[in-house]
Amino acid sequence: MKKTFLAAALATLTLAAAVPAHAQFAKPEDAIKYRRAAFTVMGTHFSRLGAMANGRVPFDARIAAENADVVLFASKLPYAAFGPGTEKGGETRAKPEIWTETDKFNAAATKLQEDVAKLNAAAKTGNPDALKTAFGAAAQSCKACHDNYRRD
Amino acid sequence: MKKTFLAAALATLTLAAAVPAHAQFAKPEDAIKYRRAAFTVMGTHFSRLGAMANGRVPFDARIAAENADVVLFASKLPYAAFGPGTEKGGETRAKPEIWTETDKFNAAATKLQEDVAKLNAAAKTGNPDALKTAFGAAAQSCKACHDNYRRD
Repeated sequence: MKKTFLAAALATLTLAAAVPAHAQFAKPEDAIKYRRAAFTVMGTHFSRLGAMANGRVPFDARIAAENADVVLFASKLPYAAFGPGTEKGGETRAKPEIWTETDKFNAAATKLQEDVAKLNAAAKTGNPDALKTAFGAAAQSCKACHDNYRRD
Repeated sequence: MKKTFLAAALATLTLAAAVPAHAQFAKPEDAIKYRRAAFTVMGTHFSRLGAMANGRVPFDARIAAENADVVLFASKLPYAAFGPGTEKGGETRAKPEIWTETDKFNAAATKLQEDVAKLNAAAKTGNPDALKTAFGAAAQSCKACHDNYRRD
């Protein structure tokens, strides 16, 4: 299991790196709109996994795997849209610390991506308990980043 | 080449079907927010392919392939969020025809997904002319759907 998790985590990191940091946004508002959209997609499917992990809907291995794939894919997208100059210029709850503690923010993003890779692997075991554990860890990463870097 | 396109198209269709139509949205506004987000992600990366296809930025095979992967993935997402009852309830430019001509709308969605699969395959040939041709076809599908089903 550990090997699967690590392999998945590495695959995510490779793919994350593959989305170019120099991805262009013509205007800050485009970057803001884009990153919010990516988080909306990620959050929607993450919530569906949560409903299953927490027993609000019955566990379904196929649906868990599908949603975990979207979460994994979406997790690679938003961080390229936090470039310099995108602190403002559109409706955003991003805190200025993102641009003053860039290394810490990037580490939090990487942590989330790693947790999401583990969640993806867990969802594919077909084991509800594995899903629940991995979902809890990923949810903690979401929350930590929101607490530190997102306005209420 | 034809075989590659067909394989890619079929893979897309399979994956499209894999995102469950019964994907739940608690409220119409959630569905509206989600589908707009998915289109924002798709459109952002589609535009980057367009800049390359139309010569506004230099052709780069790796970047073309990366963006085409995001477009392909995102193209599977929004259509599950046009369910009954999501005609209104949030800021939307969706025209009522989507819910009165459902078969026609779904066919247009499938056409777009097929064109995007071909675009993905073309982007991966590393041939700028192939990208240009496939981009043009996909852009026509985007436009046709916007003309018919999206308010200005």
